[in-house]
Amino acid sequence: MIKLLPKQEVFFDLFEQQAETVNKGAQCLAELLKDFRNVEDVAFKLKATEHDGDEIAHEIMRKLNTTFVTPLDREDIHSLTSALDDILDYIETASDRMALYEIKEPTEASIKLSAILAKSTELTLQAVCGLRDMKNAKTIHEVCIEINRLENQGDQINRAALAELFKMIDKPVEALKWREIYGHIETAIDKCEEVAEIIEATLLKNA
Amino acid sequence: MIKLLPKQEVFFDLFEQQAETVNKGAQCLAELLKDFRNVEDVAFKLKATEHDGDEIAHEIMRKLNTTFVTPLDREDIHSLTSALDDILDYIETASDRMALYEIKEPTEASIKLSAILAKSTELTLQAVCGLRDMKNAKTIHEVCIEINRLENQGDQINRAALAELFKMIDKPVEALKWREIYGHIETAIDKCEEVAEIIEATLLKNA
Amino acid sequence: MIKLLPKQEVFFDLFEQQAETVNKGAQCLAELLKDFRNVEDVAFKLKATEHDGDEIAHEIMRKLNTTFVTPLDREDIHSLTSALDDILDYIETASDRMALYEIKEPTEASIKLSAILAKSTELTLQAVCGLRDMKNAKTIHEVCIEINRLENQGDQINRAALAELFKMIDKPVEALKWREIYGHIETAIDKCEEVAEIIEATLLKNA
Repeated sequence: MIKLLPKQEVFFDLFEQQAETVNKGAQCLAELLKDFRNVEDVAFKLKATEHDGDEIAHEIMRKLNTTFVTPLDREDIHSLTSALDDILDYIETASDRMALYEIKEPTEASIKLSAILAKSTELTLQAVCGLRDMKNAKTIHEVCIEINRLENQGDQINRAALAELFKMIDKPVEALKWREIYGHIETAIDKCEEVAEIIEATLLKNA
Repeated sequence: MIKLLPKQEVFFDLFEQQAETVNKGAQCLAELLKDFRNVEDVAFKLKATEHDGDEIAHEIMRKLNTTFVTPLDREDIHSLTSALDDILDYIETASDRMALYEIKEPTEASIKLSAILAKSTELTLQAVCGLRDMKNAKTIHEVCIEINRLENQGDQINRAALAELFKMIDKPVEALKWREIYGHIETAIDKCEEVAEIIEATLLKNA
Repeated sequence: MIKLLPKQEVFFDLFEQQAETVNKGAQCLAELLKDFRNVEDVAFKLKATEHDGDEIAHEIMRKLNTTFVTPLDREDIHSLTSALDDILDYIETASDRMALYEIKEPTEASIKLSAILAKSTELTLQAVCGLRDMKNAKTIHEVCIEINRLENQGDQINRAALAELFKMIDKPVEALKWREIYGHIETAIDKCEEVAEIIEATLLKNA
C-alpha cells in the first residue's frame, strides 16, 4: 500500500480542491446573510458542501497514511486539512442554527462577520494555491498578513456585537441564539488564520 | 530508564483498561438518566471512576515517555489516551452539573443522548481491543463506521433538543443548564468518534 | 537559514521571557479584581502585555522553524509556547470582557479565581526556569504538583460560582456575563496545568 515519489502533486491538488470547497461555502453564507431568503434551503445546500469537503479531507488523510514520502511534513498536512475542514464545519453549523432557531432577520454584525469570513476564505484559497510553488513565498506571506488583519477586524465586530447582545435584557433567548451564531462565524475566521499560520511555518521550514 | 522491546504488550493492556473504565462510566450515566435517583451519589461514584481513568492515562503517558520502541506511533498513543480520557471527563462533568444545578428530572433528549453515548463507548471498547491484533482490520473498520453513525444520530438529537430549549423563553436559566449538560454528553460522543478516527488511521498505517 | 548548535540557550531565554510576561499579566488581573478601579485602563494595559507575549511566541516559532537541532523535542517547544500564549490570551479576554460588559463590581468568586491564577503563573514561571537545568527535576516536579493542586482548587470555586449564578433567575444576562468571565479565568488556570504537564513529560524523556 506504500506509494513512492511521483504522485505527490496529488496532495496539492486535494488541498486546492478543499480550499475551493471551503471558499464556496463561505460565499454562500455571506450571500444568505445579505438577502436572508430561503434560509432552510441554503442551510441544506451548505450541508452538501460540507459533505463534499469532508470527502476531500478523508481522501487527504487516506493518502497521508499510505504514502511514505510526503511533499510537506506529515503533521503539517494533517493540521492543514483539519483546519480547512473546521472552517467549513463552522460555516455549516452557523447556517444550520439560523434555520433551526427560526431566525427571522439577520443582525448588522452577522452580515459584516460573514462578509469578512468570505474575504478570508478567498485569501486562504490563494495561500493554499501558493503552497505548490514555494517561490511565491513573499506573495503568500502578504496574503497571510491580510488574513491576520481580517481576523482582528472580525474580533472587533464580534466584541461590539456581544456588548449589544448583553443589553437585550428583555430578550435573553434571542441573545443566546445570536451569541452562538456569532461564535461559529468567528471561529471559522479564526481557523482561516490558523491555516495561514500553518502555511507560514511551512514556508519557513522549506526556505 | 529506557526500556526495550518485550514489554510493549503493556500498552494494549492499559488501553483496554482505560476503554473499559470509560465504558463503565458511560453505562453508569445512562442508568442514572433512566431512573434519575440518587443523582448526588451517582455523580460522586463517577468522580471516582474518572479518577481511575486518570490514573491509567498517567501510567500510559509515563510508559510512553520512558519507552524507546513503541508498538504504535508515539503521537497516536498520546492522542488515543487523551481522547479516551476526555470522554470520561465529559461524562463526569455531565453528572456533576446535574447534581450541582439541582436538576429535578431528566429530559427526553438527555435520556436518548446518554443511551447513544453508552452504546458508543461499548463499541469504542471493542475497537480498542481490536488494536492488539491488526488482523481484525475489517471488523474494527465496521465498528468504527457504527461509532460514526451513532455520532450523527446524537447530533440530530442534540439539534432538536437545542431548538426545544430555545423555545423555553420563560425559563432561560433552565435552558442554560440543559444546554451545558447536552453539550458535555455530545462532546463525549464526539470524542468516541475521535478515538475511532485515530484507530482507523493506525490500521491504515500498519496495513 | 539553518542554524546549528551553540545558540540553543536562546530557547530557554525566550521561554523565561514568555513565562514572565504571562505572570505579569496574571498579577495585573488579580490586582484589578482586588480593588476594581479603572477597569478600562487595566484592560488596555493587558492588551499591550498580551501583545508583548505574542511577539515572544512568534520569535520562538520562527527560531523553531529555522533551527535544525533543538534543546527539547520540537513538538514540546511548540506545545509549551502555545500553552503559555493561551494563558495570556485568556487573561486578556477576561479583563476585556469586564470592561466591555460594563461590570460594576467583582464577585467573590472572581477575586478568588484570579488570585489562584496569579499564584499558578508564579509557579509556572518557576517550572519554566527549571527547564534550563534538568538537575532540578525533583524541585520542578514539586512545583508542578502544586500547580495541579491549584487547578483543582480553582475548579471547586468555579463549580460553586456556577451554582450561585444559576440561582440568579431574575438576572440571566448578569449570569451569562459572569459565566463567560469565570470560564476565561478557569481556562487560563487549566492552561497553567497544561504547561506543567508538558514540563513533566519533558523531564521524564530527558531523565
